[in-house]
Amino acid sequence: MAREMFRNIGLVARAGSEQALYSLRQLVHFLQQRGCHIIVEKALLNELGDMGLQGGTRKQLGQSCDLVIVVGGDGSLLGAARTFAGFDVPLLGINRGRLGFLTDILPSELETRVGQVLDGEFTTEYRFLMDMEVRRGGAAIGHGSALNDVVLLSGDSVHMIEFELFIDGLFVYKQRSDGLIISTPTGSTAYALSGGGPIMHPRLDAIVLVPMNPHTLTSRPLVVDGNSDIRIRVTTHKLHPLVSCDGQDGVRVQLDDEIRISKKPQRLKLLHPPGHDFYEACRSKLGWSNRLGDG
Amino acid sequence: MAREMFRNIGLVARAGSEQALYSLRQLVHFLQQRGCHIIVEKALLNELGDMGLQGGTRKQLGQSCDLVIVVGGDGSLLGAARTFAGFDVPLLGINRGRLGFLTDILPSELETRVGQVLDGEFTTEYRFLMDMEVRRGGAAIGHGSALNDVVLLSGDSVHMIEFELFIDGLFVYKQRSDGLIISTPTGSTAYALSGGGPIMHPRLDAIVLVPMNPHTLTSRPLVVDGNSDIRIRVTTHKLHPLVSCDGQDGVRVQLDDEIRISKKPQRLKLLHPPGHDFYEACRSKLGWSNRLGDG
Amino acid sequence: MAREMFRNIGLVARAGSEQALYSLRQLVHFLQQRGCHIIVEKALLNELGDMGLQGGTRKQLGQSCDLVIVVGGDGSLLGAARTFAGFDVPLLGINRGRLGFLTDILPSELETRVGQVLDGEFTTEYRFLMDMEVRRGGAAIGHGSALNDVVLLSGDSVHMIEFELFIDGLFVYKQRSDGLIISTPTGSTAYALSGGGPIMHPRLDAIVLVPMNPHTLTSRPLVVDGNSDIRIRVTTHKLHPLVSCDGQDGVRVQLDDEIRISKKPQRLKLLHPPGHDFYEACRSKLGWSNRLGDG
Amino acid sequence: MAREMFRNIGLVARAGSEQALYSLRQLVHFLQQRGCHIIVEKALLNELGDMGLQGGTRKQLGQSCDLVIVVGGDGSLLGAARTFAGFDVPLLGINRGRLGFLTDILPSELETRVGQVLDGEFTTEYRFLMDMEVRRGGAAIGHGSALNDVVLLSGDSVHMIEFELFIDGLFVYKQRSDGLIISTPTGSTAYALSGGGPIMHPRLDAIVLVPMNPHTLTSRPLVVDGNSDIRIRVTTHKLHPLVSCDGQDGVRVQLDDEIRISKKPQRLKLLHPPGHDFYEACRSKLGWSNRLGDG
Repeated sequence: MAREMFRNIGLVARAGSEQALYSLRQLVHFLQQRGCHIIVEKALLNELGDMGLQGGTRKQLGQSCDLVIVVGGDGSLLGAARTFAGFDVPLLGINRGRLGFLTDILPSELETRVGQVLDGEFTTEYRFLMDMEVRRGGAAIGHGSALNDVVLLSGDSVHMIEFELFIDGLFVYKQRSDGLIISTPTGSTAYALSGGGPIMHPRLDAIVLVPMNPHTLTSRPLVVDGNSDIRIRVTTHKLHPLVSCDGQDGVRVQLDDEIRISKKPQRLKLLHPPGHDFYEACRSKLGWSNRLGDG
Repeated sequence: MAREMFRNIGLVARAGSEQALYSLRQLVHFLQQRGCHIIVEKALLNELGDMGLQGGTRKQLGQSCDLVIVVGGDGSLLGAARTFAGFDVPLLGINRGRLGFLTDILPSELETRVGQVLDGEFTTEYRFLMDMEVRRGGAAIGHGSALNDVVLLSGDSVHMIEFELFIDGLFVYKQRSDGLIISTPTGSTAYALSGGGPIMHPRLDAIVLVPMNPHTLTSRPLVVDGNSDIRIRVTTHKLHPLVSCDGQDGVRVQLDDEIRISKKPQRLKLLHPPGHDFYEACRSKLGWSNRLGDG
Repeated sequence: MAREMFRNIGLVARAGSEQALYSLRQLVHFLQQRGCHIIVEKALLNELGDMGLQGGTRKQLGQSCDLVIVVGGDGSLLGAARTFAGFDVPLLGINRGRLGFLTDILPSELETRVGQVLDGEFTTEYRFLMDMEVRRGGAAIGHGSALNDVVLLSGDSVHMIEFELFIDGLFVYKQRSDGLIISTPTGSTAYALSGGGPIMHPRLDAIVLVPMNPHTLTSRPLVVDGNSDIRIRVTTHKLHPLVSCDGQDGVRVQLDDEIRISKKPQRLKLLHPPGHDFYEACRSKLGWSNRLGDG
Repeated sequence: MAREMFRNIGLVARAGSEQALYSLRQLVHFLQQRGCHIIVEKALLNELGDMGLQGGTRKQLGQSCDLVIVVGGDGSLLGAARTFAGFDVPLLGINRGRLGFLTDILPSELETRVGQVLDGEFTTEYRFLMDMEVRRGGAAIGHGSALNDVVLLSGDSVHMIEFELFIDGLFVYKQRSDGLIISTPTGSTAYALSGGGPIMHPRLDAIVLVPMNPHTLTSRPLVVDGNSDIRIRVTTHKLHPLVSCDGQDGVRVQLDDEIRISKKPQRLKLLHPPGHDFYEACRSKLGWSNRLGDG
């Protein structure tokens, strides 16, 4: 029955990583034993060598798979999320990166955990993404989508940038700073946290805006509804700030450009094996058990 | 028609303040001219002198008024909110305190602004409150309600306290700190902000937990759903921490006591005259226009 | 020759700790083998049982010893530092507490490390202390000394206190907050760090003032010269804040009291075995190697 | 007598600013009345029009003047400080910028205040600068000097950089972050403050290192002795971080480059008219009187 839930399984992995490849091979054997039909992201076929596997583009995987398993770090899952959010296929992450809030299956427990999921023992979590569009004059000149964050930053400069922030049509502030991080709950444990933002529970329908090194000491992280319409008007002369989604190559903006950010209609469907616990991830990954000395 | 919306009007004010009294008298004359029926909180009758007004307890005001106007600072409105949230009566605040996020009518524009509200020109905003209960053994030994925040603090001591936090039945962390601020969006611009918490938009259905001077440097403000069931177990020996709602006199707790915090079923209904804007309040009250020097 | 440097050795330990007692006994045997003359703090004689040791008050130890070894945590060394700073005797710390910036010899390497010090292989570090005096009317009503910090805090209250700060006779600010931490470089890795203060290198001749949850968002930690004359005038009504040195029982202050803080003329002389490294202590104790996840 | 102290006076101003030009003209007339000999920075002669003034390079001003007056913002004074620190000439700043910690004479009080200084009524303050050198292989490939700060930043990238920090030959940490601000006390109220650093009194002989959005939450500002030898080894691949002095155009660095920072032998000699007070500047410029609301 569970096997029928997930009959066609897509495999995606971080390219060029020996470790990811090792886990990927193990996964292929395990899934073949379970009688699953496997489709591997084309780019990996060469790396895997001749295993007689069917290859496909990400689009093909999205269209024909019941489940896509991602082997890599949170970065790999971020990329997969942006691709597969448009399809209705759930993702499952095997951790082969440094630290994983999203990819919560350890390589050592790969077979047990993936087995559980195939047997129908899992929880489903929905995470929202953001759509970003840059408009110049009346036209869109760039866009992207982000599971973690959209970041406006000064780019190649030691000078602060200036911009105006509007939320749901209301003017919020004109800010002079190194930039602004606009983060989902998913991104709140990533770059936004380094910038001084709060941790937001993944189920929260909210977006946090974290100013980076703001000139005004009273500027603070601001948490707004996840359905907010966020617009940033670039008011900085001379400089050419950068807008980046999930740390990807960004769009260069200039005076009077408008950056629009809003919730993406399609959500990411993320599966977790039994026992997944966000707070446990915080405790282990953020070192909440490390304590300061007394003197 | 508008007059019929708000026929019976209750008046509440900060006691012992000459300025509040002055605005209160002005308000009485204005409402009498408008033909409203006024009921004044009993305790104020003496201060007001013989104006031939009907007095009543807060309970009576809650039961028989269509609108309660609060003259004072945000502190006065916090108190009124805790009292009147149980009734279905809306509140309107006249600012006679230092700074007001909640009481947004200035004394100088009292007649214009109150007039607008009576004429039906206003926006309605709902704010949620939190219920707090302290349990020892199997019994409740104290409780309170808060529009801003519930604060657990070390009390009369220079020593850090220890406690365990559970959200929706899940263990979050064991913390050693000076205490914990549990704040609504309404309270996020008050004490929680001094403690390093984010600003949360008033309409957000969320609660923030802000650790106070935590021993562990990786402890950060945590934003969770407004419907979360929050429980704190006191694990500190010897010390007797205090739990306080909205800065009121607190409940003294001890080892193994449990503090339960959850959303109050009844909400506060707050009226604003036209043009009310949360971000404008942030800009003026938090000094977002103050800028740092360049050197 | 080294034996002649440190002929008479005083021993001090945290009372009531089985672990400290164990290390203390090991230390006694080791020092006896080395032919040192041992004087044990009187209070420990009972705990140690009949080992035929000479007991003495801390004053006697200070007067007649060439070296005092402290077994315990940083808390034990803080206490010893306040006592022995008046004498010219150096201290050496054996770590039996949770974490130690000051007590840097691990129990497992006790013999090797203490042996090195007795052989003359050590570095000497001077740490300054602060004197604190509370004045009411014209008279001193309380005083203390601190190696880590002097803390002014609101005491048993949820209300903020108010005070004025003067440095070298100049008015700095009037502050409304939960209190103020005045810390030496030694204390900068303890409570002041939890409060958001910077880490200061132990050799720096500076004092940091860290506001606790200040009402004004632009209040920041302030670093001044170690020889500064610091005065705090309590301007808070009703409340009775507490002033505490190194977390010890404090002095209760009231409206118009003045708290004076300045460098103590006598310094603490702290010995370290070879290889002591402040930055290494930071890395291991503050978890500088713990890293955040990418998503 | 005072006139003899400051016989030859150099004038420097922000180019292209109408306001600075206005004050500059006023200053010329005032100094001529006082019988001073004026030398104007060459670049300003054209802007000033035909006033019959002697022009000179900054070097000539440094060699032949007894006092150099800078008209502009703190940015102008930063530039002048880097130029004139090599000479023994004191600087005096007229504020024509946004906010000034360094340029503390307001245009409206120009004549009174400059008059006082010429009459010998002033205080002298020394500020130290830092020398920065970038070394690649065995050779220096770039250098600069800074009164405020040396900043290492990721440059045109959304990716964090990695580097190792050494102080006085000791390894401090390997950090992954957006960069590092190395600031003097003078710079501690500028960019370093936006980055979360402490305020340091100008007379303090210390340098603060402020990590920018560090990946590790336990990284904190670190205050070390002003005479420290600071070295940063770039360990980041692919990226080409930037090193900038006082926000000037920077030096591009790469893997294995070493950045060396140390105190400049020559100090800046800054004159202040009577009544100058650092804390008063903090109160007015940082808005220490702005207070948060109660709710």
